[in-house]
Amino acid sequence: MGPHPAVAAIRLAVRRVLHDILNEQHSRTTTPDLQRERPPSPLVLVACSGGADSMALASALAFEAPKLGIRAGGITVDHGLQPGSDLRAAEVVLRLRELGLDPVESTAVTVGREGGPEAAARDARYAALDAAAQRHGATAVLLGHTRDDQAETVLLGLARGSGTRSLSGMAAVSGAGGRYRRPFLEIDRQTARRACMVQSLPVWDDPHNADPAYTRSRLRHEGLPALEKALGKGVVEALARTAQLSRDDADALDAWASQAESSVRDATGRLECAKLYALPPAVRRRILRRAAIEAGAPAGSLFARHIEEVDRLITGWRGQGAINLPGKVVAQRQGGRLVIRQG
Amino acid sequence: MGPHPAVAAIRLAVRRVLHDILNEQHSRTTTPDLQRERPPSPLVLVACSGGADSMALASALAFEAPKLGIRAGGITVDHGLQPGSDLRAAEVVLRLRELGLDPVESTAVTVGREGGPEAAARDARYAALDAAAQRHGATAVLLGHTRDDQAETVLLGLARGSGTRSLSGMAAVSGAGGRYRRPFLEIDRQTARRACMVQSLPVWDDPHNADPAYTRSRLRHEGLPALEKALGKGVVEALARTAQLSRDDADALDAWASQAESSVRDATGRLECAKLYALPPAVRRRILRRAAIEAGAPAGSLFARHIEEVDRLITGWRGQGAINLPGKVVAQRQGGRLVIRQG
Repeated sequence: MGPHPAVAAIRLAVRRVLHDILNEQHSRTTTPDLQRERPPSPLVLVACSGGADSMALASALAFEAPKLGIRAGGITVDHGLQPGSDLRAAEVVLRLRELGLDPVESTAVTVGREGGPEAAARDARYAALDAAAQRHGATAVLLGHTRDDQAETVLLGLARGSGTRSLSGMAAVSGAGGRYRRPFLEIDRQTARRACMVQSLPVWDDPHNADPAYTRSRLRHEGLPALEKALGKGVVEALARTAQLSRDDADALDAWASQAESSVRDATGRLECAKLYALPPAVRRRILRRAAIEAGAPAGSLFARHIEEVDRLITGWRGQGAINLPGKVVAQRQGGRLVIRQG
Repeated sequence: MGPHPAVAAIRLAVRRVLHDILNEQHSRTTTPDLQRERPPSPLVLVACSGGADSMALASALAFEAPKLGIRAGGITVDHGLQPGSDLRAAEVVLRLRELGLDPVESTAVTVGREGGPEAAARDARYAALDAAAQRHGATAVLLGHTRDDQAETVLLGLARGSGTRSLSGMAAVSGAGGRYRRPFLEIDRQTARRACMVQSLPVWDDPHNADPAYTRSRLRHEGLPALEKALGKGVVEALARTAQLSRDDADALDAWASQAESSVRDATGRLECAKLYALPPAVRRRILRRAAIEAGAPAGSLFARHIEEVDRLITGWRGQGAINLPGKVVAQRQGGRLVIRQG
């Protein structure tokens, strides 16, 4: 008798990602000058909070990695945001060791305030995971984000109203050198939880996940269920698919903008308004956005309405004055050229 | 003293659209062979249900059109879905006449069942509006869709999970020859309602709009408010902006696919897998979708998962058999070529 379907599903998801990692390593180590060396047994870490998603992930990694000659380890981050979080982290370390992972460690971080509580915790967490991966020479770090997390991320992007890229959710592969992998982006939260249950893995429910002070928590417990009630049960799946399609679309348009950018500059590198005008609006606005960021505008403060105003220097020219952008960047039209620079 | 801000806002929105219509007519009638004829006074119709949005639209059209030498008329569609709907339609006709619109007429339709009650009502309505516009020689038909309607439409598209085009909501200009115009896409429902109130225009609240049997109604009264509660008050605006950005992105990618399509066909017009492989996934999948539709697959039944399966003939070739698509269309790989045809 095979494993429970939920366990089979999480293992398959992890196995696929481990195969990808091995294939990538293989294609790297068969470059001529390394051909004679035997590739080292790679180390893959799982980032684990002790919650159902990442405990399921840890269990699947512990099961699959040895069969592929991969070493499996685990990291838990102690955010220090709740009393006793250090004890909890120590308990997660024990559980990961019980699964057979090695090395396993807990790493404590100090969460700042920048960008709000959720962003600050995330920044601190990824910095700690980066450091741990480097310290251990890990090839990859697995993250337990599920399809439900992906759906929530798409809705959070939708609330920003900043277009296709912000709807593309989390990538299956991200970070420097593709360090972070998310094997569960097509696995739902329910499956991860069930996989823990049938494997008798104790899981910890982070009270933050139910705290209505957090946007994501409100979305999870109120927003998304109401949306499902109105639109039907397929909403989470539709949102996750939207993420993938949006990511592909955003990538293609970025590539187009990147390629078109050189063709709309004159010999001295200035943007020619007539050539910009001939481009589709979606491509033109991406070029304008890139130019503003290159001139020093902080990407996070540059909104669609800013770019629209710069775009009107091209599409609705009636002698407007200079346009002020974040980061003291100024955009103006001069003799058929668009000049964007820090003022 | 100027008009109430809500009235000023709806009039400005209509004035802009009327200017667009005049400019387009002007550029058409100054072609050489028509230069000597005086352009006829154009007729613009408003489609009016008697609800707040379209009554506000009718009032603004009645106010602005004469100042621009435009004739303004109105149409109300009797869907025959409620007892007494014919009396209501007659009442709307009276109100539109009181606003000074001429011609004004009510047109009765029979709503079928195809595609569900909302789609069937919509199809019948547009057919009737098309016929009325042609009968009266109208240049344009104004529709009262607001920013709130646009936000709902984006969420409905999101629930389909079929990507950027389905997130692009309703166009400001649509239909044959750009017949339909939506001046209120950036006006919120509250503003339209207030404009009716301060102008003492009686409005009719369609009970369908509050009937939870309708997806849009559930979205309006439950889904969207819950989303606003979770994500903040800017959600409607963010959704409307998403519509515009998605529309521009989808247009650009469609243009790219359309242009790339000829370059990936061999001398006999068959799709070459190697050339398709070299394209960004977003462009390649659009070409595959177009090819499937061209071969006879009904666009409405062709989902992202179908196209993904065809795409794997290119990106994950391991000798798969033919893939069955809706409309008895079959896709298969033959000697480095992709053949998509009705089987």
